[in-house]
Amino acid sequence: MITGSAIFSDFYALTMAQGFWKTGMNSRSVFEMFFRQQPFEGGFSLFAGLNTLLEKIIAFTFSQSDIEYLESLKVFETAFLEYLQNFKFSGSIWAMEEGSVIFPNEPLIRVDGGLLECQLIEGMLLNTINFQSLIATKAARVALASGGATVMEFGLRRAQGRDGALSASRAAFIGGAAGTSNSLAGKEYGIPVLGTMAHSWVMAWPSEEEAFMAYAELYPDNTVFLIDTYDTLKSGIINAIKAGKTLAAKGKNFGVRLDSGDIHYLSEEVRRMLDESGLKEAKIIASNDLDESIIKTLTDEKAPVDVWGVGTKMVTGGTVAAFSGVYKLAASSDREGKLGARMKFSDNPEKTTNPGIKQVWRIKDENGKLVADVLALEESEEADLIEKGKSYTFWHPQADYRHFNHTIEGSVEALLKERYRNGKLIEEGPALKDIQKYAQNELLSLDQTYKRFLNPHIYKVSVTEKLRALKLELIKRTSQKNYPGEMHT
Amino acid sequence: MITGSAIFSDFYALTMAQGFWKTGMNSRSVFEMFFRQQPFEGGFSLFAGLNTLLEKIIAFTFSQSDIEYLESLKVFETAFLEYLQNFKFSGSIWAMEEGSVIFPNEPLIRVDGGLLECQLIEGMLLNTINFQSLIATKAARVALASGGATVMEFGLRRAQGRDGALSASRAAFIGGAAGTSNSLAGKEYGIPVLGTMAHSWVMAWPSEEEAFMAYAELYPDNTVFLIDTYDTLKSGIINAIKAGKTLAAKGKNFGVRLDSGDIHYLSEEVRRMLDESGLKEAKIIASNDLDESIIKTLTDEKAPVDVWGVGTKMVTGGTVAAFSGVYKLAASSDREGKLGARMKFSDNPEKTTNPGIKQVWRIKDENGKLVADVLALEESEEADLIEKGKSYTFWHPQADYRHFNHTIEGSVEALLKERYRNGKLIEEGPALKDIQKYAQNELLSLDQTYKRFLNPHIYKVSVTEKLRALKLELIKRTSQKNYPGEMHT
Repeated sequence: MITGSAIFSDFYALTMAQGFWKTGMNSRSVFEMFFRQQPFEGGFSLFAGLNTLLEKIIAFTFSQSDIEYLESLKVFETAFLEYLQNFKFSGSIWAMEEGSVIFPNEPLIRVDGGLLECQLIEGMLLNTINFQSLIATKAARVALASGGATVMEFGLRRAQGRDGALSASRAAFIGGAAGTSNSLAGKEYGIPVLGTMAHSWVMAWPSEEEAFMAYAELYPDNTVFLIDTYDTLKSGIINAIKAGKTLAAKGKNFGVRLDSGDIHYLSEEVRRMLDESGLKEAKIIASNDLDESIIKTLTDEKAPVDVWGVGTKMVTGGTVAAFSGVYKLAASSDREGKLGARMKFSDNPEKTTNPGIKQVWRIKDENGKLVADVLALEESEEADLIEKGKSYTFWHPQADYRHFNHTIEGSVEALLKERYRNGKLIEEGPALKDIQKYAQNELLSLDQTYKRFLNPHIYKVSVTEKLRALKLELIKRTSQKNYPGEMHT
Repeated sequence: MITGSAIFSDFYALTMAQGFWKTGMNSRSVFEMFFRQQPFEGGFSLFAGLNTLLEKIIAFTFSQSDIEYLESLKVFETAFLEYLQNFKFSGSIWAMEEGSVIFPNEPLIRVDGGLLECQLIEGMLLNTINFQSLIATKAARVALASGGATVMEFGLRRAQGRDGALSASRAAFIGGAAGTSNSLAGKEYGIPVLGTMAHSWVMAWPSEEEAFMAYAELYPDNTVFLIDTYDTLKSGIINAIKAGKTLAAKGKNFGVRLDSGDIHYLSEEVRRMLDESGLKEAKIIASNDLDESIIKTLTDEKAPVDVWGVGTKMVTGGTVAAFSGVYKLAASSDREGKLGARMKFSDNPEKTTNPGIKQVWRIKDENGKLVADVLALEESEEADLIEKGKSYTFWHPQADYRHFNHTIEGSVEALLKERYRNGKLIEEGPALKDIQKYAQNELLSLDQTYKRFLNPHIYKVSVTEKLRALKLELIKRTSQKNYPGEMHT
C-alpha cells in the first residue's frame, strides 16, 4: 500500500547527496530526530508513525520515471543518477517504541549510516513522524478529556489531503480513538469503521420520520439517527423515539446524534425524553467541531454524552497543525574515518543541539511512574545508569547551572532500540491495537500533573555529566576560537 | 499518479448508498459545495483543487480488494457489492474556475446526478477542495505580505502526511509561491523545484568555509549558503563572502539564507557586509517559521530580504488548519420524479442552507473590479441578471431585512460552468501555471480593502428576490406546521 518513493524528498537532500557522493563524503554519520516543544501547550506527546516509517524505508527507492525527471533538471550527473537508481537504505535505525510518551529534546529516532543515505531519508522521516505524533497526541488529549466515553474519529472531509486523513486515522487510533469514519483506513489498518447518517439522508426522504424508519429497517444493529436536520427537540428526537421504539421492540438498541446547537442543553433534554420513553439504553452521540477543551467542559458539566464524534480538530491538530520534530547531525566521520560529535549552534539558543550519539534512559519510581528521562552518551555511560540505589546528578539540557540529584529506586530503561540493522528490518512491528494499548499504558504511567491541560507540570529531560561536559567543551572551543573548523571533537 | 479509489469515503456514505439502492431512492439530486467562513479572519479565499478533483472522479472506482474488505464487514449485500464493483460516476459537475476568488455561502461546485453517486463522492470531494483551497488562500496571503518578493514553499517535513505535502505544493503554487522544495511535486506537477542546503552539509565538513567552498564548486549556478549553523555574523556571512567571491569571479551570483535570530537585524547587517564586499547582487533568503504576519511586519520595516522560504505555516495553514467547506443537498426528486428544492435548518442559524439549484453571478464595475456576487435560482433568473443598466434589489442571505439596490454598469458573469456531463469530462483543465496566473488576476480585480489582514471589508454575497422568497416560504411552512414532511416545494 505505502508508496514510499524516494522522490518524496526535499530537493536539497538530492543536491547535497550528489555533493557528498562527488566529494567522497559518504562515511558513517549519525542523525537524531527529536522535537523542540510540546504541541497544544501540553505536558506530553505520543510517538507515532514508526511502523509506517519502517515500511516506507523498505520502499525508499527511485523509479525509472523519478530518474528521468531528475535527469530533466540538468543538475545531476549521469553516474550519480545511476547510483540513485540502485539506491537502497543500508544503515541502521534505532527508535523508541511506537506509542511511547515523549518529551522535548530527547532523541526519538537515531539513524546511523552513510552520510548520503541518512540525509536522503530526512524529509520522508520527518513528514511521517511529525504528522502522526501530532495527531496521536491530539487524540490522547481528546480521549483524556472525554473521561472514558467513546471517541470516534470523523475527520476525512476536512483532513489535509488523502494521506492527511489516512495517517490521521491511524494516529488517532493509537492516541485512543475507538474507530474511524474513513473506510480506507478501515481497510488498510483494520481500524473499526463507524458512521451514522448525513443530513442528506434525512432531506432526501419526504419526511424525517420516514427517513428514520427506513434506516432503522435497513440497519437494525447499527442505527444512529441524526436529529438536527430540522429541529432537534421539536422534530428530530420525536421522530427518533418513534423509530427507536420499533428497534426496541426487536430488542435492538440505537443512538441519536446531535450536530448543532448547545450540546449540554440538548443532550440533557434528549436524555430526558429518551428516558421518559423507556429508551434508557439509547446512546447520545455528539459532534460539531469538537476538541478536547469543549469536550472537557461538557464532561465536567456532566452533559450526558456517551460518544464523541471528533473530526477536523483531531485530524489536523486544530490551532496547532504541526509537530516540531527536527533531524540533526549528531556525529560524523572526519576524513580519516574517525567518528566525532557534531553540534549546531544557531542564532537561537533553543536551536542549539546536544552533540554525540545518545541513548535515552527513562527512570521510573517503585510504582512504575515516570520520574525523568536522561540523555547519555551511548558509549560511555550505559553501565553507570542502570545501578539501582546509586545517586546521580543530572543536568538541565540548556540552563547549565540547573541540576537535580536522584537516587534510583525503581527501574531504568533504555528507550532507543534497534529496528533496522544494516538495511534490514529486524522484526515486524506490533499490531496497531497493541500500539494503542501500549500508548494507554504509557499514559497511565504518567502522573496526572503532566496531563493537565492548563500549565502542565514540565517533565524533566536531563543530560548526564559527561554529555554536559562534551557540550560545554564544544561551546568553549567555538567561542574561544570563533572558528567552526576547530569545533569538532 | 492519483489514486482515487472510491474506498476513500466516509463509511456512512456507503451505508447510505446501500440504503438508497435498496429503497429505490436513486433519482436525480443536486448537491452544492460551499463554505461558511473565510479562513485566517480574511476577506477572500481562492478556489483550488478542481483539476485534482476532476481527475479523481475518473479514478473513483472500487477495486477487487475494496469489495472484499467491504464484504468482510458483513453490512453489505452481495448484489449491492456487485453494483459497487461496476460503479462509475455518471452525473454532471459544475464548478467555478480553479483559482477564482471565493466567498462564503456561494456554491463553488454543483454535483447533479443520482442521489447515490452524488453522496458517494462527498468525502473525497470535500477532502480535495477543502485542503487545496485552504493552502492556496494561505499562500496568496503570504505572497501579498511579501509585496512582490519571491516566495518559496519549503513545507514537506512538517506537512500533514505525504499528500499533505504534495497537494499543498500544488495549491501554494496556485496561490503565488514561485516553487517548492518537494521533488515529488516538481515531478508530478511541473512546479519549479528549489532548495538551498541543510545544516548537516555545513556540519559534515571540517569547517564552514570548506563546506561553502565545496558547494560553490559543485553548484556554481545555484548556490545559497546557509549561514546560521555556528554564528551568522561572526562566521556564516564571513565564510559566505569568501566563497561568494570565488563565484563572483566566475560571473556567477549566489545567495545566503538566514534561518534563525532576528531576521530584520541580521538581514540589514548581512546586506551591508555583502554590499561592502562588492556583492550587491547577492540575494538574501529568509526562513524560520514564517507566516504572512511576520513577513508583512518585516516587509513594512523594509528588511532587505529578496526571497522568503515559507514552510510549515503555509502548507498546514498554521493556526487555521481546515477550510470550512460543506456539501449539502439543494434539490432532490420525490417519488413521482419531481425535482424539488431541499433545505437544511439545523439548530445553528448559520448552518441553514440556501435551497434550490443555484447559479452564482459575479457583478463587476466598469473597471473590472468586483462589486458583489449574487445567488440566483438556476432556472428562472438567468436572463434577468445580465441586463446592463437595469437596477436590482439583492438580499442578504441570512439577515432577511438587509438588502441593497444596484444598477449594473459593468459586467455580469455566471461563475459555475459545466465540467463533467453525464460522467464525461468535458475538457482537460488548464495548466497549473495558467491557474496561478488566473488567481493572480482574480486577486488584482479584488479591491485592497478585501485583502487587508486586519478587519477586512466583507464582500457582498447576496440572493435574488426569487431565491429569498423560496427560502422564506420553506421556513414558513416548517414553522407553521412543525412537520418536516410538509416542507418540500
